[in-house]
Order: sequence, then structure tokens, then C-alpha cells
Amino acid sequence: MKKLDYFFQPKSVAVIGASRNPKKVGHVILRNFIEGKFLGKIYPINPNADEMFGLKAYPSVTRVPGSIDLAVVCIPAPIVPKALDECGRKGVRAVIIISGGFREIGNASLEEDCQKIIRKYGMSAIGPNCIGVFDPYSEVDTFFLPRYKLERPGEGTIAFISQSGALGSVVLDWMAMKNYKISKFVSYGNAMDVDEADLIEHLANDPTTKVICAYFEGVKQGRKFYDIAMKVSKKKPIIVLKGGITSEGKSAVSSHTGSLAGEYEIFHAAMKQSGIITAENLEELFDFARVFATQPKPKGNRVQVITDGGGFGVLATDWIIGNGLRLAKMDRATIGGLRKRYPPHVVIKNPLDLTGDATVERYRLAMEAAAADSNVDMIAVITLFQIPTLTAEITDVVSAVAGKCDKPLIVIAAGGRFTEVLKKSIEDFGTPTFSYPEKAAKALAALYDFGR
Amino acid sequence: MKKLDYFFQPKSVAVIGASRNPKKVGHVILRNFIEGKFLGKIYPINPNADEMFGLKAYPSVTRVPGSIDLAVVCIPAPIVPKALDECGRKGVRAVIIISGGFREIGNASLEEDCQKIIRKYGMSAIGPNCIGVFDPYSEVDTFFLPRYKLERPGEGTIAFISQSGALGSVVLDWMAMKNYKISKFVSYGNAMDVDEADLIEHLANDPTTKVICAYFEGVKQGRKFYDIAMKVSKKKPIIVLKGGITSEGKSAVSSHTGSLAGEYEIFHAAMKQSGIITAENLEELFDFARVFATQPKPKGNRVQVITDGGGFGVLATDWIIGNGLRLAKMDRATIGGLRKRYPPHVVIKNPLDLTGDATVERYRLAMEAAAADSNVDMIAVITLFQIPTLTAEITDVVSAVAGKCDKPLIVIAAGGRFTEVLKKSIEDFGTPTFSYPEKAAKALAALYDFGR
Repeated sequence: MKKLDYFFQPKSVAVIGASRNPKKVGHVILRNFIEGKFLGKIYPINPNADEMFGLKAYPSVTRVPGSIDLAVVCIPAPIVPKALDECGRKGVRAVIIISGGFREIGNASLEEDCQKIIRKYGMSAIGPNCIGVFDPYSEVDTFFLPRYKLERPGEGTIAFISQSGALGSVVLDWMAMKNYKISKFVSYGNAMDVDEADLIEHLANDPTTKVICAYFEGVKQGRKFYDIAMKVSKKKPIIVLKGGITSEGKSAVSSHTGSLAGEYEIFHAAMKQSGIITAENLEELFDFARVFATQPKPKGNRVQVITDGGGFGVLATDWIIGNGLRLAKMDRATIGGLRKRYPPHVVIKNPLDLTGDATVERYRLAMEAAAADSNVDMIAVITLFQIPTLTAEITDVVSAVAGKCDKPLIVIAAGGRFTEVLKKSIEDFGTPTFSYPEKAAKALAALYDFGR
Repeated sequence: MKKLDYFFQPKSVAVIGASRNPKKVGHVILRNFIEGKFLGKIYPINPNADEMFGLKAYPSVTRVPGSIDLAVVCIPAPIVPKALDECGRKGVRAVIIISGGFREIGNASLEEDCQKIIRKYGMSAIGPNCIGVFDPYSEVDTFFLPRYKLERPGEGTIAFISQSGALGSVVLDWMAMKNYKISKFVSYGNAMDVDEADLIEHLANDPTTKVICAYFEGVKQGRKFYDIAMKVSKKKPIIVLKGGITSEGKSAVSSHTGSLAGEYEIFHAAMKQSGIITAENLEELFDFARVFATQPKPKGNRVQVITDGGGFGVLATDWIIGNGLRLAKMDRATIGGLRKRYPPHVVIKNPLDLTGDATVERYRLAMEAAAADSNVDMIAVITLFQIPTLTAEITDVVSAVAGKCDKPLIVIAAGGRFTEVLKKSIEDFGTPTFSYPEKAAKALAALYDFGR
């Protein structure tokens, strides 16, 4: 096992600060391990208890009979060093320090003390001042917010790392609602030991992770980050959203994580050079991630638009061109073949407008034709489900054709609850869906840029 | 009654092409009138029926005993002129022509014939090739899509007009899901008689409409539109999303509505000169509309950010500055007052970071302080509901303070289902909510620009 694997696939875990009080962090984290599908051994650590939820409790990790891969620390900051020293003596491999009260409130020396202990024993540490790890495969879950307030996403291929705990947990909650799935989720806080670069390096070799997403306000060690990103981005896409772009935002950063936000221009240039994709906002980050995780690299930038609504076709065209892509021109033979099978009012151009009486069969023909035509590099399918002639079967046909297509293919559909249900079905079969043409176009443009 | 009032508050309506076949447009429209809360008289017109859903049917409007304010025409294009002539002879005031098959497929002469008849009798006409009108107050509803596929929004103050029928209906459906409310909704298609300028002029005097939103691909008569927009925008905000911005998009427009999209630069300049606000996309259009419909004009561009998550505070700051607004600097007395009542780790700056153990009471104090401080022009409240100390009571407190505040105040909250429920409650009490800081900042910037 690699060093960082102990955070995600520990065979045994100790919760230092485990508690019976439901309002305590140590309570929620202990219960996450007990009630989830975590299969390893669980050791509650609390000097004032012999037993918790049917498990034997210990006053210290040093008293635990078996070995401990991971310790989760949720006790007040001043007593963290002592607990870490005990972890070291016990041979604990990895430590997640949830507790706050270190560098972020000016208490740098306490953080340095902890760092020394971690290094002395050769342990790895995430935190302090963080929410820690959520891994849907192993169900290591140190997020201390109850599931009714903060849902957890299912097993997927997108990894997310966040310096900010609050932002990280909001994103986790939002992804769960959207039914977006993840491989690993890490809020790493003050990055006393393991930093964003280490995590990216680890995720590069993680077989379940296809795309690496990150939010941070600054990087810990510029050179190290740059070198690692350069290497990893050749293998897997790294998408970054950075906070603290304006000078006012930077000053807010210093009150927040105490890190230096740096000049955005420099940062942005360094990102680009090291092959990192930057997102403008959180939605865009995950728009990109969903497309990168599921779609192949396109051969070129020629997009074929298929639609049942002229207005959406026009908007999509504007955004495709506005994002530096081109409209594909299908082959004459393709057009001739479609002309024979469509009624005369279908507009076989780009956008290919199947019009307001479009049927599932018309979509199937159009998608198959675009998939087979060598003048088409990517396909944007607009399905406004509201029209009377389009039955719910459209989701099966779209998913089936998309599944066989070796070009990037995305679906755009806007509307209400009926539309959202059908979109979820398409998304579940691996085709990214968007509500609006501008977001779809931006994601395709990012995929094209990364492919080059 | 004004001429266009007959479209929205008719005392009697004839459905020309009413049908018993559930797949027919004339069936859905007739049932909309019968099953909704429409209070006027309803006359099904169909030469092959004596009775429909318990109502007496007539072979022609000329045979209806009472007067007819509004006729909805959903019969094949070639027989529309005859029906219009009968409407004219009957003294019908207003006609909505749903039927397609006119100028948009090159059949300009048929459309001109219809136009002549409308003018000859002094009637008003919306359409042809449109979806028509939805008014949630009177429940005039000519949208021919069943409600399970296309929901209808409730009674509100935002009007929306759309050249494109498909786009219009998608937006209606989406608004209903989002719980955004509307005053009037018009899809006007080929604009043979009533065009976007006429509708805007009418909505300017409509007491339930506070904000006018529009999607179009081109304007029918530039000079007329410009003059009317100039006048109306002094009274009510007009927000426009235009399709056909790029030359490729323009060419898609000509296949779609057959209108000329014009040069975007010229269009954009003309919009600005006439006081129109342009939106970049559909979401932004309604973000702006919700803020314009509920919030007062700000006195300046100084925004106070209140947050319980540092990362979101940083992102909000970046976007506020990036959109030409400034961070407010609260008065010393305000800061001193808050200092006394907050624990020391609360960061009383801008962003005012109540931190991850924020309570409802901390929010109340911060919001009231910002509302009272003359150095603050607008307030952006970030409430990440996931934190353990924040109870659902926060929605009442936010709504109460916002209700008394004479400055623009918006709420930003991202997350999953729990968050969405709380946001809906806040939105219902009249405070606009956003998922992401960038959208909130753009909307506040638009409000500030309009105010000047």
C-alpha cells in the first residue's frame, strides 16, 4: 500500500475524542464508521468510557490491542500533540486532524509542534482545521455533519479536494442532490503535512479516479505543486477553481485560511503551463468534470447540433462559436440519406432542426448519422421534452446511441420536473446533461482544449 | 379596456378548432379554459360537433349568440383566412393564431392575407406560429402542452415575452419548478400584427407587472421598438436575451423564425441607449428579474458580505469586485457594537465571517447592523445551512430582517435538498436566493446599473 492509501482504505481506525453526545464531532464521526459499510476495525478512544455503541472503548491508542492504520483526531487543539505522540508510539500510519485552533488563528507554534511529531514517527497527516475524508467505496467518512443536513454522493470517478471545509461540504451536499458521483473527497485544511500537491500525485495513481477537481485559495509550495501538476496533467485532467482572485478577495483569504493567495495572473499562467484547466465557478468545475470523466477526446472542434426547438438551436450555435468551436458540415451523402427519411419541414442543416413534432425515431436517425459522419467531431443533442410527440423512450434511445458513439456527445434539456427526471436517467447511463447551451458549449470547448 | 387587454382578460373566448381528440391542440386548449379557473364564457367552434365537455359547440363564430372577446385559432393554415373573416364579421376583439405554416416556411402571401383581414376589421392578433398566452391571474392558457409535461407558474410580477414558442414553453416549465412567479407570458411567433414593441408598451401599463423580460432573435420594426423601449425603461426594467449573436447563430435564426438577426454590436448599443438591460443567458435573465422585482434601487455600490463559510466569502468578494461593485466599510460604531456581542473568533470585516459555529442570533445581529449602517448600500448574506449550529429558524430571521430592510438584500446558499427547501421558504417571503456568489454579484451589479 502507498503511504496515502491508509487514509482511504484503512483496515482499522481509531476515533480519538469519540463521544456519546450527539452534538460532538467525535460522536458523528464514530457513528459514520459504525453505521456505514466500513468493514475495518473501529476503536473509540475516550478516557471516560469503557464501551460505546457496543464497541470496547480505550483511554488511549496505546492501549488498543491490534494495529491501527488511521486515527481521526477530534479533541481540543492543546491536547492534540500528546495524542499524536501516542499515535506515533503505537505505529499509527495516518492521522486526520479535524480539530481547529492552529495556524488559522495565529497559533503557528502549536501546529509546528504537531508537524514535528508527525515527521518524527514517519506518519502522514491531513489537516488540522479540516473536515477530512469521504470515500464512497470504503466509506471512510470523517465529515461531521449529519446526513439529513449533508447528503453523501455515490461511487464514481471524480475526485475533489478542497482547502476550505465549508466549501467542500457544500459541494459534497450539492453533488449528492445532483446525483453526481465521486471517487474521493478530501478537505485538507491547513495542510500541515499532506498538501494539495501530494493529494494530486496520489490521485494520479488512484484507479477509480478519472478526473481530479480542486478548490484552493493558494498553493503551499509553488515549485512542488507545479512539477507534480505538470506530470499528472499528462495522465489525467486536473480542474481547479481558485478563490482570492481580486485584491479584496485575497485579503479575505488571509482572514480565512491565512495563506497567501498570490497574483492571479501569475497563478493562471502557471496553471496553464502545467496543463491544469481552470474553471470560473463551482458549476463550471463540475460541468467540466462530468464531461471529462465520461467522454472521449474529440478529433477536432466541429460540433453538430441536433434540436427540436429552433430558439435553443440558435442559442447553442452562438455559444459554440463564442467558445472557439465550429459548426460541423455533414457530408452530402449523410444529408441525402436523412433527406429521404425525414418529412420536408425538417431542416437538415446545422443546427439540424427536427422541429416541434420531432419523434424518438427522428432523433435516432440524426444521432446515428452524426456519429458516423467523419466531418463531425462532437455532438450536442438538444431534447426539449415538452413537445407532445416526444415520448419518454427518448432517454433509452439517446443513451443507446451515445453508448456506442466514439465521439463526445452531450445532451441539453431545460424545463421542469418531468425534464429533470428524464435527464437524470440519461446522466445515469453516462451521458452528461446540461440545462443551458452556454454551459454545454463551454464544457465541450474545455474538452477540446485538453485534448490538444 | 385597452386593445391588448382582450388577450389577457377576455369575458368570452372561442376556440376555433376545438376537438375531442386528446392529441389535438384544439383539445388541450379547450380543456385549459374549462378546467382552469377561467371565469368567462367558453365557445367550442367545430363544424362536426354539437356539444363538447358539456358545452354547446358551434360550426362558426358567426353562429355564437353572445359577443366574443378572444378567439384562439388552431386549424390548418389554408383555412385560417376564412376563420379570421368570420371573426371580423362577428366583432371578435382579439385573435391568437396558434397555427403554423405561414412566413416561417416561406408562405408569406398567406400571412399577408391574414394581416389584411385583421386590419380590415380593426382586430388585434398574436401569432401566427406561436404558443400564445398564459396569464396566471385570469388563466387564459393557450399553451397546448399537457400540464404533466409543462407545469404552469403561479401569480407574480415578472412578465415574459418570447418570439420562440419552444423556448418560451421550456422557460415556463422551468419557472414553475423553481417556484418563480409570473404576471403574464406571451409567445408571439411571427408577429404578424402585435409585435414585441406593442407587448412591452402594454406591459408598461399593466399593474401586476413589475419587470418585463424578453427573448427574441430580432426586432420587427427597429425604430418603433427603440422609441417604446426608451419610454418604458424609465418606468420599468426591461431585460432582454437575444439569440443569433454570432454570424452562425444568425444563419440559424433565418431557418428558425425567418427574421433578420441584425448586427449584435448595433443591437447591443441600441439596447443600452434605450435603457434595456441585456442578459447573457436564460438563468441570468431570471436572476436579474427576481432581484428587480423584489429589491429597491441601491444608493451606491458598496456591498456588505455576511457569511458562515470563509471560502464562499472569498468567492463572493472576488465576484463583487469583478462586477464593478465595492466592499462596504462599516462604521466604527457598528463594528464596535458587534465586537461586544460576538465571541472573539468572529471576523468583523468584510466579508463578516460568523464562522462555522454561527447561530441564528449572530446572523440577526449582523444583518440588522448592516441594514442600519449608512456605509452599506447592499447586503449579500451567505447562509451555508450545513453547519451544525444553524437551525431552520434562520429562514424566519432572514425573511424578517430582509422584510424591514430598505436596501437590496439577497441570500446565497448552496447545497442539497435540505438547503433547497430552506431557500424556497426565503424566496417565498420575497428575498431572492442564489446558489453561487457569481450570479448574486452579477444581479446586484445589474440592479446598481439600472438604478443609476
